[in-house]
Amino acid sequence: MNSRWQALIVVLGTAVTCFLAGAYFQHDHATRQLQKLVQHDPYAYYVSSKIFKVFQFFKIPQDKALSAQRVRLEDIMKYGYPGLDDIHLYSDFVLSYDRRNRVAHWVCEHLRADALGSAAITDRGRGRVRSRSRISYRPDLSVPSNFRAALADYRNSGFDRGHLAAAGNHRTHCDETFYLTNIAPQIGRGFNRAAWNKLEIYVRNLTLRYGSVYVFTGPIYKPKARSNGNWSIEYEMIGSNMVAVPTHFFKVLIVESKLPQGKPYMEAYVLPNARIPDNINLRDYLCDIREIEHYAGLQFFNGLRRSRIFGSNFPRSSQVFQNFG
Amino acid sequence: MNSRWQALIVVLGTAVTCFLAGAYFQHDHATRQLQKLVQHDPYAYYVSSKIFKVFQFFKIPQDKALSAQRVRLEDIMKYGYPGLDDIHLYSDFVLSYDRRNRVAHWVCEHLRADALGSAAITDRGRGRVRSRSRISYRPDLSVPSNFRAALADYRNSGFDRGHLAAAGNHRTHCDETFYLTNIAPQIGRGFNRAAWNKLEIYVRNLTLRYGSVYVFTGPIYKPKARSNGNWSIEYEMIGSNMVAVPTHFFKVLIVESKLPQGKPYMEAYVLPNARIPDNINLRDYLCDIREIEHYAGLQFFNGLRRSRIFGSNFPRSSQVFQNFG
Repeated sequence: MNSRWQALIVVLGTAVTCFLAGAYFQHDHATRQLQKLVQHDPYAYYVSSKIFKVFQFFKIPQDKALSAQRVRLEDIMKYGYPGLDDIHLYSDFVLSYDRRNRVAHWVCEHLRADALGSAAITDRGRGRVRSRSRISYRPDLSVPSNFRAALADYRNSGFDRGHLAAAGNHRTHCDETFYLTNIAPQIGRGFNRAAWNKLEIYVRNLTLRYGSVYVFTGPIYKPKARSNGNWSIEYEMIGSNMVAVPTHFFKVLIVESKLPQGKPYMEAYVLPNARIPDNINLRDYLCDIREIEHYAGLQFFNGLRRSRIFGSNFPRSSQVFQNFG
Repeated sequence: MNSRWQALIVVLGTAVTCFLAGAYFQHDHATRQLQKLVQHDPYAYYVSSKIFKVFQFFKIPQDKALSAQRVRLEDIMKYGYPGLDDIHLYSDFVLSYDRRNRVAHWVCEHLRADALGSAAITDRGRGRVRSRSRISYRPDLSVPSNFRAALADYRNSGFDRGHLAAAGNHRTHCDETFYLTNIAPQIGRGFNRAAWNKLEIYVRNLTLRYGSVYVFTGPIYKPKARSNGNWSIEYEMIGSNMVAVPTHFFKVLIVESKLPQGKPYMEAYVLPNARIPDNINLRDYLCDIREIEHYAGLQFFNGLRRSRIFGSNFPRSSQVFQNFG
């Protein structure tokens, strides 16, 4: 009788242990596969918190090897997606593409001082000599041909092929910033080669000083007031693929604090796509982020109240739109 | 010795069985939860085929009860998402919202003869008497206030509040078609109350005749040729929330065959948001779907070649844009 009971206990113990082991095996296998999916698919990453909520019985495994080879989606999108239209993941930045305008909605980068290196603060004129001369602009074949900008669209258009994610920010994967998805028609003299370049250098200086900066860059198509009191949108399109010429460009910067409890600091700039006088200071282009959100149709920081996240406030009303309409 | 072996076999058998049972339990629990998620989250549904590929050891359970209470996402989006911007799921239609223009990108409905009922073919003038008079237009609070159209925007604007998903198509959840997300500024006389209404009645007639029709409806902001050979976009915006006034509206219809092996039939219409002469035939507004895709920045049928899906071809070049610029 005694050995009977012993046998029963052994069988029961085995049953429970193996049931749990089986459940854990399936849990572990599924979550690891899903983590791989989530790291290269922007939309799977977007819903990942909901997906992983399903696996409630065991802890989600943290694979060290997986973390190391992790593409940077989780890192780059730390502050949320400003919009969800046609998202593309590149090695060093994430981009949402506007198929109607053949220009990106927004590009998001995470800049770190160690990746920038000491040569980062140089003007792009000098940078070009060393690395940019070999790189050519190219159409991005991951966009369906119906919505793809081509090199011919920019040729003889009178506009520069202006970078959204700046080439100088990405030393390792610099070539990817030359995809036309990351390019927009910009006024050359007085803008792309002047004020916009100044802003890009300012961002790199911030990065070298504070270590970690997130940058959202994108176009704005700003409505104009009509005489009848209504508003109207009006902008040019170049080339046979009809690439839109934005009226303004924005950059939203999130500078992370080096202090352990320090809140990040946020700044937003809007520059008109126009010949800007040389003597104007960058601070004159500071802008309330809600104006950018309204005109660009984007929502930053998942709609969280800014004052909860950021240590510094932004100007309540900006000078930019008053100066440049 | 013999009983020892017997005991070992029992323990091993129990171990294997319980391991598999545990794995299946976890598999079944996770996939059922995920199926629930996928049915009310448009983005989870978009990546669902990739998610379920992870569960490769057992069959995905088909829950009858779940299928019955299934919201209609899987049914409505049978032919794929034309775009991925800000997707909202309503009881009877799916909508992608353009936060920059405060008007939808597209609305997708699946119309079935049994749901329409015999009164469906009536003009909306008569329909209004019975059901529409109680329903009021309302802002959709699921859109952040920064991007939300308000009733005041349409007041005294000179434009009708035109339905994208027609109110007459949805007898059970008619009130949801009155959310301002499903509304766009339309010219009243000669368009919303004439040609557009005629097109909506035509769609319902098709549904009653063929049983099952999918409808994509949305706005177009069509570029105009400039004197310098380039193109420009120009459209009005009404109200303090700046609601865009589209230059055209499109409807893409997919009529499913009643025959078991019959291919579906596809038609696309583009109507200018203008006063249209009464004597013009609906067929004059037939349009090549690739023109709609190009101007609206949308891609229908997941980019599959039309001739593989559809029994009928579409006109190679349309008259619409030639007549109305």
